[in-house]
Amino acid sequence: MTALPLKEIGAPDRGICVRRFAEIRHATEALAAGLLPEDQAIQSMPDVSPTKWHLAHTTWFFETFLLIPHLAGYTAFHPAFAYLFNSYYETVGARHPRPQRGLLSRPGTAEIAAYRRFVDDAMRNLIEGSDDATWDGIAPLIELGLNHEQQHQELILMDIKHVFSLNPLRPAYRPRTALATSKPSPMRWIDFEGGLVEIGHDGRGFAFDNEGPRHRVWLDPFRLASRLVTCGEYMDFMEDGGYRRPELWLSDGWAAVKAEAWPAPLYWERRDGEWSVFTLSGTQPFNAAEPVCHVSYYEADAFARWCGKRLATESEWEHAASNAALAGNFVHRGALHPIPARGDGSLEQMFGDVWEWTMSAYLPYPRFRPAAGAVGEYNGKFMSGQMVLRGGAAVTPPDHIRVTYRNFFPPSARWAFGGLRLAEYR
Amino acid sequence: MTALPLKEIGAPDRGICVRRFAEIRHATEALAAGLLPEDQAIQSMPDVSPTKWHLAHTTWFFETFLLIPHLAGYTAFHPAFAYLFNSYYETVGARHPRPQRGLLSRPGTAEIAAYRRFVDDAMRNLIEGSDDATWDGIAPLIELGLNHEQQHQELILMDIKHVFSLNPLRPAYRPRTALATSKPSPMRWIDFEGGLVEIGHDGRGFAFDNEGPRHRVWLDPFRLASRLVTCGEYMDFMEDGGYRRPELWLSDGWAAVKAEAWPAPLYWERRDGEWSVFTLSGTQPFNAAEPVCHVSYYEADAFARWCGKRLATESEWEHAASNAALAGNFVHRGALHPIPARGDGSLEQMFGDVWEWTMSAYLPYPRFRPAAGAVGEYNGKFMSGQMVLRGGAAVTPPDHIRVTYRNFFPPSARWAFGGLRLAEYR
Amino acid sequence: MTALPLKEIGAPDRGICVRRFAEIRHATEALAAGLLPEDQAIQSMPDVSPTKWHLAHTTWFFETFLLIPHLAGYTAFHPAFAYLFNSYYETVGARHPRPQRGLLSRPGTAEIAAYRRFVDDAMRNLIEGSDDATWDGIAPLIELGLNHEQQHQELILMDIKHVFSLNPLRPAYRPRTALATSKPSPMRWIDFEGGLVEIGHDGRGFAFDNEGPRHRVWLDPFRLASRLVTCGEYMDFMEDGGYRRPELWLSDGWAAVKAEAWPAPLYWERRDGEWSVFTLSGTQPFNAAEPVCHVSYYEADAFARWCGKRLATESEWEHAASNAALAGNFVHRGALHPIPARGDGSLEQMFGDVWEWTMSAYLPYPRFRPAAGAVGEYNGKFMSGQMVLRGGAAVTPPDHIRVTYRNFFPPSARWAFGGLRLAEYR
Amino acid sequence: MTALPLKEIGAPDRGICVRRFAEIRHATEALAAGLLPEDQAIQSMPDVSPTKWHLAHTTWFFETFLLIPHLAGYTAFHPAFAYLFNSYYETVGARHPRPQRGLLSRPGTAEIAAYRRFVDDAMRNLIEGSDDATWDGIAPLIELGLNHEQQHQELILMDIKHVFSLNPLRPAYRPRTALATSKPSPMRWIDFEGGLVEIGHDGRGFAFDNEGPRHRVWLDPFRLASRLVTCGEYMDFMEDGGYRRPELWLSDGWAAVKAEAWPAPLYWERRDGEWSVFTLSGTQPFNAAEPVCHVSYYEADAFARWCGKRLATESEWEHAASNAALAGNFVHRGALHPIPARGDGSLEQMFGDVWEWTMSAYLPYPRFRPAAGAVGEYNGKFMSGQMVLRGGAAVTPPDHIRVTYRNFFPPSARWAFGGLRLAEYR
Repeated sequence: MTALPLKEIGAPDRGICVRRFAEIRHATEALAAGLLPEDQAIQSMPDVSPTKWHLAHTTWFFETFLLIPHLAGYTAFHPAFAYLFNSYYETVGARHPRPQRGLLSRPGTAEIAAYRRFVDDAMRNLIEGSDDATWDGIAPLIELGLNHEQQHQELILMDIKHVFSLNPLRPAYRPRTALATSKPSPMRWIDFEGGLVEIGHDGRGFAFDNEGPRHRVWLDPFRLASRLVTCGEYMDFMEDGGYRRPELWLSDGWAAVKAEAWPAPLYWERRDGEWSVFTLSGTQPFNAAEPVCHVSYYEADAFARWCGKRLATESEWEHAASNAALAGNFVHRGALHPIPARGDGSLEQMFGDVWEWTMSAYLPYPRFRPAAGAVGEYNGKFMSGQMVLRGGAAVTPPDHIRVTYRNFFPPSARWAFGGLRLAEYR
Repeated sequence: MTALPLKEIGAPDRGICVRRFAEIRHATEALAAGLLPEDQAIQSMPDVSPTKWHLAHTTWFFETFLLIPHLAGYTAFHPAFAYLFNSYYETVGARHPRPQRGLLSRPGTAEIAAYRRFVDDAMRNLIEGSDDATWDGIAPLIELGLNHEQQHQELILMDIKHVFSLNPLRPAYRPRTALATSKPSPMRWIDFEGGLVEIGHDGRGFAFDNEGPRHRVWLDPFRLASRLVTCGEYMDFMEDGGYRRPELWLSDGWAAVKAEAWPAPLYWERRDGEWSVFTLSGTQPFNAAEPVCHVSYYEADAFARWCGKRLATESEWEHAASNAALAGNFVHRGALHPIPARGDGSLEQMFGDVWEWTMSAYLPYPRFRPAAGAVGEYNGKFMSGQMVLRGGAAVTPPDHIRVTYRNFFPPSARWAFGGLRLAEYR
Repeated sequence: MTALPLKEIGAPDRGICVRRFAEIRHATEALAAGLLPEDQAIQSMPDVSPTKWHLAHTTWFFETFLLIPHLAGYTAFHPAFAYLFNSYYETVGARHPRPQRGLLSRPGTAEIAAYRRFVDDAMRNLIEGSDDATWDGIAPLIELGLNHEQQHQELILMDIKHVFSLNPLRPAYRPRTALATSKPSPMRWIDFEGGLVEIGHDGRGFAFDNEGPRHRVWLDPFRLASRLVTCGEYMDFMEDGGYRRPELWLSDGWAAVKAEAWPAPLYWERRDGEWSVFTLSGTQPFNAAEPVCHVSYYEADAFARWCGKRLATESEWEHAASNAALAGNFVHRGALHPIPARGDGSLEQMFGDVWEWTMSAYLPYPRFRPAAGAVGEYNGKFMSGQMVLRGGAAVTPPDHIRVTYRNFFPPSARWAFGGLRLAEYR
Repeated sequence: MTALPLKEIGAPDRGICVRRFAEIRHATEALAAGLLPEDQAIQSMPDVSPTKWHLAHTTWFFETFLLIPHLAGYTAFHPAFAYLFNSYYETVGARHPRPQRGLLSRPGTAEIAAYRRFVDDAMRNLIEGSDDATWDGIAPLIELGLNHEQQHQELILMDIKHVFSLNPLRPAYRPRTALATSKPSPMRWIDFEGGLVEIGHDGRGFAFDNEGPRHRVWLDPFRLASRLVTCGEYMDFMEDGGYRRPELWLSDGWAAVKAEAWPAPLYWERRDGEWSVFTLSGTQPFNAAEPVCHVSYYEADAFARWCGKRLATESEWEHAASNAALAGNFVHRGALHPIPARGDGSLEQMFGDVWEWTMSAYLPYPRFRPAAGAVGEYNGKFMSGQMVLRGGAAVTPPDHIRVTYRNFFPPSARWAFGGLRLAEYR
């Protein structure tokens, strides 16, 4: 049991690493390939970053944590980029204020593309040319950098969706793939005995520091719904006055409903009495069979209360998911949107489609310690005021997720691909 | 195991109830007796309520939940008071906006005193004159109303302290009682085995709904500090750059430090290089032996991190406190301020002095259900965005606290009497 | 022609001054006599000051500008009051922030009454006991202090009206006096030739520095309405969509209408389709014959545009008023509210009832120089962003007004007793 | 004398109009030619618009006011552009909120270029093909549209300067042209007799509606400084504590100094004790001889007060300028920045270099009426809360300015090229 999984991975084969590095870096660029330079410069709210910022920041990560300390003779591509593209690492120095990322027209997309090539070349040299001792030390950091880059791949999609949603022209990021509009599979209750169980990462293979250490928790017997809550079920809640009945809401949630005048999940739009949903393929007709998405924790909690049910704890979720296949509707499927459940009533949709809000606050596991050095700022300092989500979404890279993976957002956040599954005690 | 402790108490003797009712109501008025009418009208920030609002709101509680539904022929003292003095009960109807409580000069203190007498008289009639079936039904609600009133006694003191602290004249609420300024007792580590333990209220005697149901939790072996952290120890943290080192802070905490320019706990003041502390007895010299107080969760957490330690979970705290005597520096002692530990190194100060921040988010216990009806809004709807504090403070009524008692505040709150005790894993 | 009228007045008889001092100081206290201590402590918005603050600040003016510099051996009543009760005099030192005046429960009303007596006694000594050279120097400052106190008499009434208006109980400051509800006199156009005229104070007798120097202006021929615009006429504007038609409004005015959701003048209330008006005598039925009051410059301007007319310039107003009798519905009449015009169609209501918004920005007259010393901050530094109002209102002391008197408020201000009269070019 | 100058111009030769139309439209595009698409999408504060928005909005003006009503068979280029590119014309319909112009990545610069070509082609058809009656009616509107486009040429430069100034890379819009850094010419006082004079536009040739009608004003004898205030003189003010002495400031100005922490004019930067100035040619060394620029009215007023002088009224300025040659450092010189005075002590720099703040509020002239229809919203509705500036600046097109031209900005605005000239009474 350790809080420092990075050291435990063991250095992989260098050739594999070079290939994996190239693939993941390329995947990021592929996500931006269809966007105009103008699209890549916009910050639609403080939580959102411009696409080109993501392209540069992920590059900065490798430059800052790998190349500068470990590649002899390496000179930073541009002296100001350390300031412009640091996200939140206090240890590393001052940084451009987050809400002002959208004020930077320069460096432009072309200069950032050059930055990426420059760093990629140097990284290849580092991976292939470092001595064995160095290699053992840096391999875990490269793995962290690649996982970091995959997180930003998801953020690129979340963020450009938000940017486009505020444009009256409602641009589409990608044409729609054909979607079966059949009914979802029936919802059944799956029973779990609970008891004294173990959850958390055991340190074998890569994981973020916040996923460990593995530890014991007591679970009372519980049930999980076999599939995600659908848009149709959520519409029933809305039509029963869901957004007008304070007794269904947490106090902070009700305050958010009133302050922001939420009438529905984010991206749902009503015109002339008809509902539609803005997606990465533009505005689409309402589909009752789809999993509901882009709800806050407050909405997920209120919906569950309206049902007389609740959300799962993250321990329950992880325990239940530990035998499920790590497969689902991830970014590689191309839908970039959750799709209806098609199963037979056994446990499904645990991975992919939408991140599932749990009723667990994002807090450290027993004996948790952040990774040493600046990368210790990666997760630990956010363990306040946020709730845990599990399972990955339709915009998550498929090789990025694990059963122990802990995503987290403030309870009011709606621009993530967050949905829900019901739970109850037996 | 039940989530509805109110029904379990059993109706007490009516004579005892009349006496207890009179005592608690009188105690509230005694707290306001030395204040000017002007003092009682001020709201110094949205979280604070004017003294006279507390005097009226606690009365409204009895009028709304006891007299109107249960005393035949009762007419409300004033038709507008239902609107003016409802705090947050959505079920009961519209209400005056919380941040505007300080805009109400009328009703004045004299009219509110008349309101209290009017309701007290009617309550005596209800207690003494109701038939037995009614009595069985209302006795738990009266108990809830009295516990509610005791909570507002503490709020009256918290709030007037804040009001006075913003006045350049720094008025004293009450003359200072003599304080030993000796050294605190030494800090020792007390070991606990942990394992599968039970916490939470078992339904015997009064408790708030959020304290139950009693349930099992797994605890890894842990240690608690024998006493509270002192002002002197906290000063060491400050002098070591505590408020200038982001690596010690949660991200939200560091944002608060910068946004609010916190240099020290609330109510600490520095003039000409000398520190002093504003108390309910006016400005007092800094006393290194006293428990530190009026820190936020963020500050408590940062201090613990600086020590290489942590805060206890609420389960650990409750398990550790379950054998401690329910005694300490509460409001009846008259200090209205925490006092130095004087023990021998065994576990002390678990009750009284300061509320101890835990590292537990305020969330429902397994199988928790709020009390039925409007009083169900009492606790459950606040289970988001807050942290649990335990043990009561120097402004808490001594007969109000329990080992299972869960207080809660947002992690940024400093006007409560919040302090801390260190913990670690064994 | 001088910009420093204070020196020009000549020292009056000391006995008269003592009597006048006592009368004006007493009149202020009489305005507060019927208020609770709680009423006197409330600040309902940053522009409003608590009654007791006005009582103390006017006293501070005499203490600061007369007693401390000119009465040998005088010691300030309280060392902190210089900080607490300075309004905006940068030259005099630091001061309590204006928006926080409502946070000060202490000093209470009793202590402020003692402060007033203390300063009044000392002022009597100063007036009666100073040598002749001192007397010549201070007499103009005393006159300024008394005019200053009269301005705060009006502010006390404006401010308590606002405080009470926000209380759901809608308290009355004073019982209503009987009001004739007859029709107003007819509106006629009064012609003026204009030409090269003189306006501004000539330095004989007291005036504020901003009223001079007297100077020439060119006026094109113009007309003024014989009386003020009534509530009935304003209602016609409202019923014709006045608050919903952007083409009638200045851009800033339309922004205010939308941002503040103004449906009507301040203090107009609609319940169940019926309009009523909150006054210092509580809520009163809508009276179409009364002059409209509590409108902003934006509303006055929009109404005039809707009529195809305009507001007068301050030069036009002063030129037209220069032959009118200085009499009207001022505070001594006791109505504390504008009353219907009862004339025969000749020019009326130029003085009293409501301050008349002009279309003139509040700017310095040619060769204006502020008075020397701290009292130079009285007027000059506010010559930006405000519009001029003329003629006094139903809450103005009758011996306080002059034909040259320039009142000023930001164009969005509505809590002053501001109304309007129409004008046009011939 | 008329308030509707548009009708008075008389229709010009169509061929000249086609050429002038092409020249002015091309000049706008030339200003954007060196910018990246990313540069053209940024809105750095609500007052600033993205370059591409200016390119589209000026095009929308011709489409909305000329093509749609007057060119038979014309279909709008894109149905959503009426919403996206309306600036503030309430009469024309709903519009995209101004502060959100920077959220629109689409339409991109390429699509906007196509929009411009489409509208330009149609405009040529309209100019050349309309019948004579139509031509007489539309020629003044085309002239208005071209003057409107010239205003946006200046705004493009003002706005991109602000955008670049917030980028830590401090990009240069255009390389610096060689600047003589010699001493400025000496400052002399030029006397004017004043008296009853005429100002305002007389309706011959194009003018904006706010420049007329021509009317009489009385001017006391006055003096103007022969040249603009320089950076060196302004530095003396700063070194004498200009930004730290409240007695020099209007109250609103002092509030702005404190709230915004202004240490110097906008775009002045101090590093390691050395001052530099950000310009459209990047960061340049401080040049004492240059006219000071990018000051607010508050700063201009405070500087003048510090000198014991004042600003001119707009009447004084226009009277004094009426014999000056309409020539100066305008945009065609290419400096894009004010340059030192090189005269002999006679009146100079009245036109070009910097807009000169006057002490006149922006209010309607006597008998002013806005132009009929939607274009009446062009100027009149902004006649509140702003101050008049005169004479044009180094970013103004030289054929755009007149002696009667009234520019206006809020007194706090600093991103315009605003400077000052001293005045006094004789």
